[in-house]
Amino acid sequence: MKCTADIDTRDVEELYINIDPIQAGGRLTVDAQKAALAYSDGYSVCDNCRKPFRLDYINKPPIADFHHDCAEWLNMDAVRLVPGARRGFQAVASSIVEKGDPVLVTALSHYTEFVSLEQAGADIHEIPKDECNHITADNAAARIEDVTREAGKTPSILFVEHVDYQYGNIHEIAGIAKVAHQYDIPVLLNGAYSVGIMPVDGKALGVDFVIGSGHKSMAAPAPSGLVATTDEYADIVFRTTQAKGDITGRTFGIKEVEMMGCTLMGVTVVGLMASFPAVKERVLHWDREVKNSNTVVDALCAIEGTQVESDMPREHTLTRINTIDSFDKVAETHKKRGYFLSQSLKKKGVIGVIPGSTRVWKFNTYGLTDAQIDHVCQSFQEIARENGLNVS
Amino acid sequence: MKCTADIDTRDVEELYINIDPIQAGGRLTVDAQKAALAYSDGYSVCDNCRKPFRLDYINKPPIADFHHDCAEWLNMDAVRLVPGARRGFQAVASSIVEKGDPVLVTALSHYTEFVSLEQAGADIHEIPKDECNHITADNAAARIEDVTREAGKTPSILFVEHVDYQYGNIHEIAGIAKVAHQYDIPVLLNGAYSVGIMPVDGKALGVDFVIGSGHKSMAAPAPSGLVATTDEYADIVFRTTQAKGDITGRTFGIKEVEMMGCTLMGVTVVGLMASFPAVKERVLHWDREVKNSNTVVDALCAIEGTQVESDMPREHTLTRINTIDSFDKVAETHKKRGYFLSQSLKKKGVIGVIPGSTRVWKFNTYGLTDAQIDHVCQSFQEIARENGLNVS
Repeated sequence: MKCTADIDTRDVEELYINIDPIQAGGRLTVDAQKAALAYSDGYSVCDNCRKPFRLDYINKPPIADFHHDCAEWLNMDAVRLVPGARRGFQAVASSIVEKGDPVLVTALSHYTEFVSLEQAGADIHEIPKDECNHITADNAAARIEDVTREAGKTPSILFVEHVDYQYGNIHEIAGIAKVAHQYDIPVLLNGAYSVGIMPVDGKALGVDFVIGSGHKSMAAPAPSGLVATTDEYADIVFRTTQAKGDITGRTFGIKEVEMMGCTLMGVTVVGLMASFPAVKERVLHWDREVKNSNTVVDALCAIEGTQVESDMPREHTLTRINTIDSFDKVAETHKKRGYFLSQSLKKKGVIGVIPGSTRVWKFNTYGLTDAQIDHVCQSFQEIARENGLNVS
Repeated sequence: MKCTADIDTRDVEELYINIDPIQAGGRLTVDAQKAALAYSDGYSVCDNCRKPFRLDYINKPPIADFHHDCAEWLNMDAVRLVPGARRGFQAVASSIVEKGDPVLVTALSHYTEFVSLEQAGADIHEIPKDECNHITADNAAARIEDVTREAGKTPSILFVEHVDYQYGNIHEIAGIAKVAHQYDIPVLLNGAYSVGIMPVDGKALGVDFVIGSGHKSMAAPAPSGLVATTDEYADIVFRTTQAKGDITGRTFGIKEVEMMGCTLMGVTVVGLMASFPAVKERVLHWDREVKNSNTVVDALCAIEGTQVESDMPREHTLTRINTIDSFDKVAETHKKRGYFLSQSLKKKGVIGVIPGSTRVWKFNTYGLTDAQIDHVCQSFQEIARENGLNVS
């Protein structure tokens, strides 16, 4: 048996500027770091658990209040915490989708959306993206018609990404929801790249479910996330157990089936809560983040042959960039091949670009300071110049 | 909107001796505390995630090795991590049970077992406990016969607790598994109160699934746990996604459906790993823990009218005690009513007994030092004497 005791201390966030696409919004706040240390023991929030014995009823720490505040913040009626956005997709799929039901996702849906629906036995169909890499209400409407005709019934649910993981584009959610509701199809918003970093108003978007990720965008430890829904669907997705022991006659109170009772009993819920005031504040400054994103994108586009595949100007901090005619040309002859880019960046104190990637890759500027943004811009351009690429 | 920023620092483990039934095995080791601090950021273990992009393939930190070591340690063939034992029950139920299938649990099954099977649409039946509060192979056999006759088919699975949450009794697992296998019924072991605190050998027990809880018994943050299985069932429960985008043609590699891809991407997996060497060592000293448990139980039984409802002598550190004829008699006339016991204990530095409980309650002595054990014994007896109960 090998020894797995030696876990190096992680210090990348202290030593480097991290532009990893998935990690930017999940860095803990200082308050969450402190809370994580204080509540790291297993069932640490259960000290004062009293009847009816469910996580969202605990008052000390103020978990019950947090649930209410979080629902209000998202302009939805009810919130529950789950171990990751994917577990939110799973809870909704398991509640709404019957085996064999047609369902809709999009050409930009994350694999966890597919997997949650696959687990529910769904017949999964995609809404195509348009030529601008957008999911539109028109395409949704056309696809609802197609799938309904083929399947003989309307899709049970439509999953759509507020911001997709491939391009970081913001999609036409209100329009899509309006169309779906004309066919009585409930709409789930995948807010993994929005809830916690940019303003999200569930009622204004007109969706039935808002799913957020704590470790992706709410400055919380993994796995954490949330399901928010309306009064209409709360009783379905948050239904309580009806199980009864046939010999003992036991019943199990108000434990919710899809939540499996309690969900985040320690460091994860406390991390979410401790970051929440800062998270509420930071979404109000989204414009600053978008500005920074555009600054880096502009610096990259000044390098000859570099193209942005995401919407321009950027409306989000996650960006997909095409450097086939710039950094990848360098890689062809560089002794380190495609690894030169990530290695050169690391030497300059920037990490988060997948080692070996020089063709199409993604980065996320969320949460960087102005000085860090400048440094990232300079680093890319210096590496370009050092390797013979023109910078305009 | 109320402010939920104020989360008091938790210091109960520093200030008190905690005999809470569910918290004892989930207190972090010092190594896990350090690791939890270093890896508290959301996707902290994903810095070096490379193809095929799945948690259990990550080598730095050594998550891949940990999976192998953990399987070997439990004498099972394969392990995956999940956000809590309940998510392990869910993964197995979802894979094995079809809607309407008869399944067996026990009269001592935890609610999370019921809920996971309810979610899968199972027709749930209990195996009765015998007069000693044990689940026996004989009762399992009889119940398999009954349910098979009633349902017209054999149960799809049998869930049984290695150690139940009500009495902390150790059940006849090998015998039950042998009986179940005679009917080709796979057996899931709920090891929430065994994996990580006492020796568990899956092959010796003859079970098909071993479920463990990180936050209950493996000195890890919540939510965390594991599913261990055999080669026979690994391909079923850990099956990879078959989903395919019907427009994009996208497929999703080796992501596993029941795991929903990756599970514990940060503090939770690192907490499990950092505690693992200490956990492997501590299960070897289970005899010491059992001795301590008996010491406290003996001290309680010396108080007039006090009875133990769990097996005697104790073979586990979780114990169910009946003080209806001792502390509850005091409560009848005490000005603090039933709260006198928890409050008196707290004054003496002992917490973890549910406030108000003086009739039938539970405690767990796991992990206490000899000096702490002595103090707990003295505290109970002093409170008894102070309130006019004889102590022999």
